Formats: sequence, structure tokens, C-alpha cells
Amino acid sequence: MRRFGMVIKLKPDKVEEYKALHRNVWPEVLRTIKDCHIQNYTIFYKDGYLFSYYEYTGNNYEEDMKKMASDPVTQKWWALCKPCQEPLETRKEGEWWAEMEEVFHLD
Amino acid sequence: MRRFGMVIKLKPDKVEEYKALHRNVWPEVLRTIKDCHIQNYTIFYKDGYLFSYYEYTGNNYEEDMKKMASDPVTQKWWALCKPCQEPLETRKEGEWWAEMEEVFHLD
Repeated sequence: MRRFGMVIKLKPDKVEEYKALHRNVWPEVLRTIKDCHIQNYTIFYKDGYLFSYYEYTGNNYEEDMKKMASDPVTQKWWALCKPCQEPLETRKEGEWWAEMEEVFHLD
Repeated sequence: MRRFGMVIKLKPDKVEEYKALHRNVWPEVLRTIKDCHIQNYTIFYKDGYLFSYYEYTGNNYEEDMKKMASDPVTQKWWALCKPCQEPLETRKEGEWWAEMEEVFHLD
């Protein structure tokens, strides 16, 4: 199992819209996340920043992320979410949410 | 079980010191965390921000946090960590790390 911590900004005028969207995430989107071996997935918000934590239980993360990105319902969902977000300038090439560095873990 | 997402800043000149400390957290500190019913605890770093995720499995969080804060070894540990950190102005009264708002969860 591999843990991920990801960070992105929310546009100040889109905070409520983003929160409302996430109170009712579409079932197909949730099913695709599960199908891509993501579990224990939480998104937190504070002061303009979204932080997400999730665990990946598959054995080909890049393949699973491609699978997720190719799902048509997920694409429609992202078309609603992405305009709310403002990615970090310092994100790596190809990233939207920026991956954080794990500096400590205790089971 | 209750999930927590917490955020705090790291002073730019203390990033390496903080990371080094967390590569070798004292066993007594880890034991106290466990004794206080915290599990699956991860700290991530990106662009001056620390984000922590953990799960609380006890039934009196405030009591357990007081217990942790009263442990002498934990106090010595915090005396090393806190000077590396810069708490958010917007944190709530009594907070050091600022608690984030959970906006989404999928098991």
C-alpha cells in the first residue's frame, strides 16, 4: 500500500461551489476511484488550500491513473471541479494536484 | 473512528532540521501517540506547509490530547519541533496545528 498527500488551491470565489459538489459526488465517479484501487480517500480544506490523503492498493499506479482519466463520467466531473481549483506553480510536470513529500509515518 | 487533517507552516530555514528530526522520532514519543489512540499518522511537506493526517480511535479526544501534552518526553520532543514551525494566524484558540475541514471522504 502506498500513501499519497496532495495539495492544490481553491479559487476564493469557488470554495462553496467545490464543497457543495463534494457533498454529492456522483456514484460513477466514486466507483471509478474504487476500481482504480484508491481507498481511505479524504479531502480537507483550510485557508484556500485543499489537501487530499488517499491510499493506493493496486500495483500499477500510473496505469490506474490513466484508467481514471479516460473514464468519460470522471472527465465530466473534473470539468466541474477543475475550474474551482488553482494548481500550485511548483507542481511537477504533468501534475494537477501537487504531490507532497512524506516526512513521517506511524501505522 | 475520527479522521483529522491538520496544517502548519515550517520556517524556511528549519525545513531540513524538521525532516531530520522526523526520520528518527524517539520511541517514547511514538509510544505515547499510540497510547493516545492515534493511528495511521502521516506528515507531508510541500512549499513551506506541513500537512498531517491521522485517525483517532479512542472515545475522548480532548482527554487523550491532554494526556499526550502532559507526557514529559513528548514535551521535550515538542521543544525541538515547535521552533521549526510557524502556526497559521487563522488557527482556532488553543490550536498549534490548525484543524482543517473535511469536505470529502470515501472509505
